[in-house]
Amino acid sequence: MTPTGPNAVAVADQPPLLSCAGVHDARHRIAGRVVQTPVIRSDDLERMAGARLWLKAENLQRGGSFKIRGALLAVDRLVAAGSRGVVAQSTGNHALAVALAAAQHRLPAVLVLPTDAAPTKVRRIRETGAEVLQAGTTLAERVAVVEEVGETCGYDAVDPYQNPDVVAGQGTATAELLHQVDAADGRLDAVVLPVGGGSAVAGAVLATAGQGVDVYAAEPGAVPALTAALRAGGPVTVDAKPTIADGLRPDRIGRLPYDLVHDAVAEVFTIDEDAIAEALRLALVHARLLVEPAAATALAGALRLAAAGRARDIGVLVSGGNVETGLVASVLGRQTS
Amino acid sequence: MTPTGPNAVAVADQPPLLSCAGVHDARHRIAGRVVQTPVIRSDDLERMAGARLWLKAENLQRGGSFKIRGALLAVDRLVAAGSRGVVAQSTGNHALAVALAAAQHRLPAVLVLPTDAAPTKVRRIRETGAEVLQAGTTLAERVAVVEEVGETCGYDAVDPYQNPDVVAGQGTATAELLHQVDAADGRLDAVVLPVGGGSAVAGAVLATAGQGVDVYAAEPGAVPALTAALRAGGPVTVDAKPTIADGLRPDRIGRLPYDLVHDAVAEVFTIDEDAIAEALRLALVHARLLVEPAAATALAGALRLAAAGRARDIGVLVSGGNVETGLVASVLGRQTS
Repeated sequence: MTPTGPNAVAVADQPPLLSCAGVHDARHRIAGRVVQTPVIRSDDLERMAGARLWLKAENLQRGGSFKIRGALLAVDRLVAAGSRGVVAQSTGNHALAVALAAAQHRLPAVLVLPTDAAPTKVRRIRETGAEVLQAGTTLAERVAVVEEVGETCGYDAVDPYQNPDVVAGQGTATAELLHQVDAADGRLDAVVLPVGGGSAVAGAVLATAGQGVDVYAAEPGAVPALTAALRAGGPVTVDAKPTIADGLRPDRIGRLPYDLVHDAVAEVFTIDEDAIAEALRLALVHARLLVEPAAATALAGALRLAAAGRARDIGVLVSGGNVETGLVASVLGRQTS
Repeated sequence: MTPTGPNAVAVADQPPLLSCAGVHDARHRIAGRVVQTPVIRSDDLERMAGARLWLKAENLQRGGSFKIRGALLAVDRLVAAGSRGVVAQSTGNHALAVALAAAQHRLPAVLVLPTDAAPTKVRRIRETGAEVLQAGTTLAERVAVVEEVGETCGYDAVDPYQNPDVVAGQGTATAELLHQVDAADGRLDAVVLPVGGGSAVAGAVLATAGQGVDVYAAEPGAVPALTAALRAGGPVTVDAKPTIADGLRPDRIGRLPYDLVHDAVAEVFTIDEDAIAEALRLALVHARLLVEPAAATALAGALRLAAAGRARDIGVLVSGGNVETGLVASVLGRQTS
């Protein structure tokens, strides 16, 4: 099969670098194929926080989340190598991103989601023409289906946490944020990223290397996969409780992200369900952005960091905006301020 | 009193030009004092519309609406002339904008809103330290209070529709949109703006002069003030019915906006309440932007224009994002798609 991606030859020739240079290279490869999402500031939120909050609005990204960045790079490489189709599992956004990337190349795609996936995400994936399989609620159950489909159909897996292209690609969101803050004559002390499988925070560690920006992670208290991994000295499967942050349900951090972040992350905030919902409401009412609970988790972490007085300029990866309207309506019904 | 505004001397020296050059000049005067709001595109919305929609996201502006643009210029000029305080009436956003502009100059401000104003807007105005008076529900009732306060306190009125600085300032939103679309290698066929008192559409007529961009207006069917004025050959007071578009409740178009737009506007769309609510929901779910009903009215107009196949690239002034959360929750509850 002839490579069809615009950078297919270059991609096939170069292994992805898991470094700041690799993220820089990834930015060039996806330039013009992703939205350079705006960085939003809100006077109201900053007054509440007592710090400047630079919200990298990846909820406005193609596919509604930052995941398209890594998926494009990974699928480009597979296409260049002659792939016949791709298969991927995720709680939704990586799957949607892989589906969109595959559609660009007219490549068949099968996406494996949990049975309790957000219906919005399932619908958006099907709209790309890709196939959706729903299997179990745990990471292990989905991974097993990915392996089966890969063997049966001869499709290539695009892992959301272990694939180096994915990690470097996700890092471009943070690299772009740093660039945009710099262009606005600002300077970040810290960035806060949500943690599911770990690709966002791993990408941020690469993107910020040597730049004096502290990297913080935020995860639901219900699924403290990174906190548990740091305590255990390696990825462990946690007993996941229910969380509205559907994007952060992976019950185990990826090995590759863990290796990149374990001695680089400044702190991991665990956010309870009420704080996630409240941050979603604050983003909507004060920053006028519809964000999904995973993104709200990062915002809640940033508010925690600001309250501790440990940073004046905080970047937040507003990772996505694929959220059920019923959840938004119920959060707005809380009306706490 | 010494002028305190950064451009106070220049402002006092030059009368505002009601022309494209005047809008250009206004852009320079407010540069760095307003947010250069992003232009957002949504694949989903564009697929539904069958046209490219360039959403000028002034819901992300300081004060939550584009009204800060004109208010800054108007208040600058009054300060330069030695004003002791300002008074203004509006359904909310112009009042908030004047309050914010006055606060920059430590100038007392009294704002007159209808008794049924959106509580969010009243609260935000009070948070600036300005005083709020609520009077009646019609434009005439509020204007009477503005005149009284002006006489009693010696404060200067900042009219939301008749003030040339306000009109030129509001035009900067459209001028900036044209510039941003151009920078993205696009080209607008048309812009659609919401109509309350008429300053947005008047500003757009100035900003687009001679550029081959058609200017469309959208107003609630419940308050068809521009439609009625065009029919009567001049501003008339209409019998306003209830509308969720609180920002578009003025029951009479301003004389100055009327004179600027009556032979320049391509068409006025009247939008019914269901279509306003549906556009608000579409903006939230698909563009991930919280917009107020006035902005949704413009989006609904743009969808109407696109459906008629009369424009391929449509700019939309997403005029503001100051909306009651209860209204949003109720709109989301409709769940029509």
